[in-house]
Amino acid sequence: MTMYNPPRRHLISQLAHVELLTPCVEKSAAYFHDLLGMEISATEGDSVYLRGWGEYFHHSIKLTQSRLPGIGHFSYRTTGPEALETLAAEIAASGRGEGFIDGDVGHGRAYRFTMPEGHVGEIFWEVERIAVPPEERSIIVSRAQRYIIRGVPARRLHHVTLFASDTKGAREFLQDTVSLITTELVRFDGTAHELLVMMTANVQDHDMGITWDQFGATSPGRFNHVALWYDTREEIMRVADLCFDHHHPMEFGPTRHGGTELFFMYVTEPGGNRIELCTGGYVNYEPDRPIFEHLASEGGAVMWGNPFPQEMHGIGTPPVDPKTGLVIEPPAVTA
Amino acid sequence: MTMYNPPRRHLISQLAHVELLTPCVEKSAAYFHDLLGMEISATEGDSVYLRGWGEYFHHSIKLTQSRLPGIGHFSYRTTGPEALETLAAEIAASGRGEGFIDGDVGHGRAYRFTMPEGHVGEIFWEVERIAVPPEERSIIVSRAQRYIIRGVPARRLHHVTLFASDTKGAREFLQDTVSLITTELVRFDGTAHELLVMMTANVQDHDMGITWDQFGATSPGRFNHVALWYDTREEIMRVADLCFDHHHPMEFGPTRHGGTELFFMYVTEPGGNRIELCTGGYVNYEPDRPIFEHLASEGGAVMWGNPFPQEMHGIGTPPVDPKTGLVIEPPAVTA
Amino acid sequence: MTMYNPPRRHLISQLAHVELLTPCVEKSAAYFHDLLGMEISATEGDSVYLRGWGEYFHHSIKLTQSRLPGIGHFSYRTTGPEALETLAAEIAASGRGEGFIDGDVGHGRAYRFTMPEGHVGEIFWEVERIAVPPEERSIIVSRAQRYIIRGVPARRLHHVTLFASDTKGAREFLQDTVSLITTELVRFDGTAHELLVMMTANVQDHDMGITWDQFGATSPGRFNHVALWYDTREEIMRVADLCFDHHHPMEFGPTRHGGTELFFMYVTEPGGNRIELCTGGYVNYEPDRPIFEHLASEGGAVMWGNPFPQEMHGIGTPPVDPKTGLVIEPPAVTA
Amino acid sequence: MTMYNPPRRHLISQLAHVELLTPCVEKSAAYFHDLLGMEISATEGDSVYLRGWGEYFHHSIKLTQSRLPGIGHFSYRTTGPEALETLAAEIAASGRGEGFIDGDVGHGRAYRFTMPEGHVGEIFWEVERIAVPPEERSIIVSRAQRYIIRGVPARRLHHVTLFASDTKGAREFLQDTVSLITTELVRFDGTAHELLVMMTANVQDHDMGITWDQFGATSPGRFNHVALWYDTREEIMRVADLCFDHHHPMEFGPTRHGGTELFFMYVTEPGGNRIELCTGGYVNYEPDRPIFEHLASEGGAVMWGNPFPQEMHGIGTPPVDPKTGLVIEPPAVTA
Repeated sequence: MTMYNPPRRHLISQLAHVELLTPCVEKSAAYFHDLLGMEISATEGDSVYLRGWGEYFHHSIKLTQSRLPGIGHFSYRTTGPEALETLAAEIAASGRGEGFIDGDVGHGRAYRFTMPEGHVGEIFWEVERIAVPPEERSIIVSRAQRYIIRGVPARRLHHVTLFASDTKGAREFLQDTVSLITTELVRFDGTAHELLVMMTANVQDHDMGITWDQFGATSPGRFNHVALWYDTREEIMRVADLCFDHHHPMEFGPTRHGGTELFFMYVTEPGGNRIELCTGGYVNYEPDRPIFEHLASEGGAVMWGNPFPQEMHGIGTPPVDPKTGLVIEPPAVTA
Repeated sequence: MTMYNPPRRHLISQLAHVELLTPCVEKSAAYFHDLLGMEISATEGDSVYLRGWGEYFHHSIKLTQSRLPGIGHFSYRTTGPEALETLAAEIAASGRGEGFIDGDVGHGRAYRFTMPEGHVGEIFWEVERIAVPPEERSIIVSRAQRYIIRGVPARRLHHVTLFASDTKGAREFLQDTVSLITTELVRFDGTAHELLVMMTANVQDHDMGITWDQFGATSPGRFNHVALWYDTREEIMRVADLCFDHHHPMEFGPTRHGGTELFFMYVTEPGGNRIELCTGGYVNYEPDRPIFEHLASEGGAVMWGNPFPQEMHGIGTPPVDPKTGLVIEPPAVTA
Repeated sequence: MTMYNPPRRHLISQLAHVELLTPCVEKSAAYFHDLLGMEISATEGDSVYLRGWGEYFHHSIKLTQSRLPGIGHFSYRTTGPEALETLAAEIAASGRGEGFIDGDVGHGRAYRFTMPEGHVGEIFWEVERIAVPPEERSIIVSRAQRYIIRGVPARRLHHVTLFASDTKGAREFLQDTVSLITTELVRFDGTAHELLVMMTANVQDHDMGITWDQFGATSPGRFNHVALWYDTREEIMRVADLCFDHHHPMEFGPTRHGGTELFFMYVTEPGGNRIELCTGGYVNYEPDRPIFEHLASEGGAVMWGNPFPQEMHGIGTPPVDPKTGLVIEPPAVTA
Repeated sequence: MTMYNPPRRHLISQLAHVELLTPCVEKSAAYFHDLLGMEISATEGDSVYLRGWGEYFHHSIKLTQSRLPGIGHFSYRTTGPEALETLAAEIAASGRGEGFIDGDVGHGRAYRFTMPEGHVGEIFWEVERIAVPPEERSIIVSRAQRYIIRGVPARRLHHVTLFASDTKGAREFLQDTVSLITTELVRFDGTAHELLVMMTANVQDHDMGITWDQFGATSPGRFNHVALWYDTREEIMRVADLCFDHHHPMEFGPTRHGGTELFFMYVTEPGGNRIELCTGGYVNYEPDRPIFEHLASEGGAVMWGNPFPQEMHGIGTPPVDPKTGLVIEPPAVTA
């Protein structure tokens, strides 16, 4: 029986930025800047703000110095000022609201909320658009930033994926209260448990993923990955070549996902967080599109002849001890 | 001064299909089927209905036998049944409405309208989704049709571009009455005349183009091109290789547009209509995005070192005699 | 200490063709023709002769119906008629010669020899060049065959890789007696045993590979794979997509080798033989180039984040029972 | 009637380096280093020596400060020390020899010669192989230099193309005296005049080109271009993107040649010399391969829909005044 989302309410327009926590913010920033070719929009306090060459807003990645790696928060932009108030009120009514903050570098007043296992989300409306010095502007009017010659430049933020022990609970909160759409769903065979969920605020295959964390009960709120978008597969393969010869860790790929059909590679930034580099996938403009659903046993993790490393199902940030399921306290790292 | 669109009304979800007129429907259908790898969804009367491998609806291209080549109609899907009624009423009030038709193969009841220079448009809601025989289904749940091994298969319909002598008039009708969004605008220097307009129903760089026709006054309602989307540049270059060695006409490219930054090639199908094959471009999720505007003299037709053939500005279907500006009556062609 | 080859004698110009044995020659031929886009040059007796679109000779792959899969023979072309006589006499003197045969479809008189573990090789000079019907010729004079629209067409034969228990013995025979050059060598740590050897008749990274067979003692003369060359990585990824959705077995890849740095994928043709699809690699024009040598422990099987499946080290044709090390007698298969 | 080369003598192994003259050697060096990702192997006197990431010798491009742009010399490596002496003696006997020089940075004793219209060539044997600091070595043993992260790194020198008014005379000297092989030949219709000639020392489609110079009679010895090789088309398209947004001149392409079928782009380095970036093409291992010959009227300059700019037939370095056919004396430029 095909499942559908409720009618779209058009309260949220897009995933706008993700904050990563890193025990070595300078090394992490150098990785995003030098290898992934992102631009530093601002540095303030313990945080560095970065953007891809094809983005429209002040930043899409915020790196913040922290004792442990993981996610700080994820942030969606609403479709307007009223939508922000409407949605904030609804989240408050759900009991998961944390109230408004004054904003941050690059955007205005934002309403924060906490997901069932502790992940922090945010919605906002007022945004500072990308400000490029005249000599770095593109000739093309639709793109503020000229092409970047440094590294292998990522175009834009694509999605964020969280770890959860109760993936269904996380999905229902984001769907019912935050108004995201569910696009794909992988269930464990013979149960109602959900191994992997994909959701979106718009027409993209997904901008939010939730994947089952075997250690989620003892170490809730962990982070799986954030994904950056490239226009071509060749760019991602060039990152792989550079990682190989310059000793940056690669975790899996380049190869091709089954669900979404994104071509992708997982790498690890110096702070320990998993970064996905991806291209392809799909857009679906149907307001009444069905939820694409299948069983874990039906495969789909990868399409080609590169088997998915099963141990990845437990790997995220902060890292946990597989025996105890508890977060590993890292040795002191200096940025 | 940056221009903006009025707030989005979310009445239309996407460009759904385009009907091309061709004096040799069988040859045209063979071209789309054999070279561009599209599937034939239906053949009925004088028309052949085709779809790309990555589409969700019954068809995106309808080919109809006709004395002259050109466009039959373009068709947008609304965001729901009420949106269809609302929009139909508004178009009727504008005086450009033609009333409802019962529908066509693959979709239900549709409201037709005529643009100022005669192009016929349509809106509808009820759609037949792609029905693939079980043995041709993909393993991937998000894609109904398995990958096609024939030719160089196009993924989906991307946009349609019309010719008009009063591009501004055409744009204002589509923007104000049909609720499309203007995304890019190229003006002739020192005038309010518009050389090229790009519009969309959603977040795509454009799904509708309007370009200035120097013969539009004497031969109104002409067609510039319809564009099919590929996932990679290599596919489009393979079409170019095959066109070269198999004697199919190429008009321009592969190279890269300035506006939208789409990688593209123009080819000519046997009926004489221009087809664009494209990939790249951008999505913009901002509900309040500015209209990207520049002057014709600022360039942007192409980004790379392949000069744009100026004669293309007058070439479309049906073809005209450049001396008289009148449509050339073709010799009889049999399919 | 860097090793070098003896001075080049320029007796052999290139690997010209490889004969595969298959228990289902019609299915195998359909696979090469329909999926890999090769042309059938001839069908004679139990054999089908195929060529890639960018080849100059009558055929590069010969498929022959056989009870068991595996390799029939590999064949090098000499640099001239005298070189054929010279080399034949030297091979005869080595005691491994089998004498001249009259030739085969597509080439003249050939001298056959048997390698230490039973693989059959051949050298010849007179060759029939590709004969393409006028309507299938390319416009390009340097390429006889126009681009093929069917499947994902392989350009040409690239290399053949044999299995051997004594890889060093096999290498020394091909180097000292057949005059091939050794290009790369992977040794097991702390021993003189060679895990993998790459050799060539010319400037290519390799056209002959020899890899260690753990079952070579009990089942000598097995076949590892034959490799076909594509111009681009995208073509190989398209084969992967088609294999996935059309249920053709993929064994490993697409990903990138360490040694040679070829981008590649291993697939299995219906007869059970492994086929490699590859692109990239290198040419080295130095007559005095060093042998590139490293230890197995230093890695290099793959460059990216897709781990090499260790079980592949024993998989070849004909297949063996891992418990007994003896060839598995297949159930009767009809073509 | 198919033409063939005389039997191969194997005296020359490869094109080793090309010296470009530039009025602004520092700007030129920055272009090759920063944009084309080449490594600086040495700087000595007025010259800068560069190499690509996939090369085996000390350098492949030498840039020398000069009043006018153009070619300094081109240099082939022989197949051994005896071959150097043999060839030097034969060139001396032709009357075009200039005698031995002591060598240059990166290679030993070299014999110089002057072509009929004044281009300077050189042959040598002793070469300094690439010396990479340990921390910049690749993990891959077959490649000394690890992948370069800077710019869009060219892999290696591919070919050099000279301008000549008597292309046939130039070809006959290189073929008969220097022992290069002719691979492709384009004749003007109805004459014995040759518009374009391609030659090689080995199996490559060409490493030497000679193209007809309409100003060759009044300004002999001009330079057409030097070509650098990339592994993929995407890299060349990325150079095009960067040239566009960073204001580096593009002359033509990216598109695809007919002859050789190389995918390519022509750019102009700051000194004014044309640089070709290319990939694809073919290898032909046949010792008895025919010369691929066709008429200028049969096309083949480009395969796709991007017309070749006819004015390029007269553009080279040093530049000439089209009215007088004499070299334009440049305004003083400082490096």
